[in-house]
Amino acid sequence: MPEGLSGPFEPPYYVVVFTSRLTASPDGYGEAAARMLELARQQPGFLGIDSARVDGGVGITVSYWRDEESIAGWRNNAEHTATREHGRKHWYEGFVNHVARVERVYDFSRPDDGRAD
Amino acid sequence: MPEGLSGPFEPPYYVVVFTSRLTASPDGYGEAAARMLELARQQPGFLGIDSARVDGGVGITVSYWRDEESIAGWRNNAEHTATREHGRKHWYEGFVNHVARVERVYDFSRPDDGRAD
Repeated sequence: MPEGLSGPFEPPYYVVVFTSRLTASPDGYGEAAARMLELARQQPGFLGIDSARVDGGVGITVSYWRDEESIAGWRNNAEHTATREHGRKHWYEGFVNHVARVERVYDFSRPDDGRAD
Repeated sequence: MPEGLSGPFEPPYYVVVFTSRLTASPDGYGEAAARMLELARQQPGFLGIDSARVDGGVGITVSYWRDEESIAGWRNNAEHTATREHGRKHWYEGFVNHVARVERVYDFSRPDDGRAD
């Protein structure tokens, strides 16, 4: 497993690819995002998460799940549901949420000597 | 379609989720990434791409494709193949590449009056 990255996991598993752009003043967003991460990690079937954002631009959060049931469980979590509703009202200019079944995966880690050839 | 984000597209389609961490001095990476984007856009079946990176940390590039054949075509592109090999030698501490079939998607765009409720 490459250091600092999620996966690879054993296929099949699921990814939720959430891309978003924030409003100019998304008050409370950072704290809520940290809390959602803490909650997600406690969900059955949670495998991992990766997240990055361009300053003032697109943010991408990819979460990895064992199966569809895990995703449904997280979606139906009451605190998560309330936070999503708050987010639509206050934080997001727009978002797209793609749910996909991972069919294959490969990874690479640089050898310890720093050479990859 | 939310402004500044790729999708939503009509399922089924495919996502390639490429997460990576760069070496300390990835010389030529930025130029090569721009060139690969230009090339990918010309590929049959290319639908879109989103990309973000944490400074000094994880980078995520999500590309969207019509079908498996489109992904194979891009993978077999000669210039892309040469650039990937260069990347393993010089740019990446590690990466993970997840290929997944999108089964459903939803999106949100803030209404023009700025209120989402």
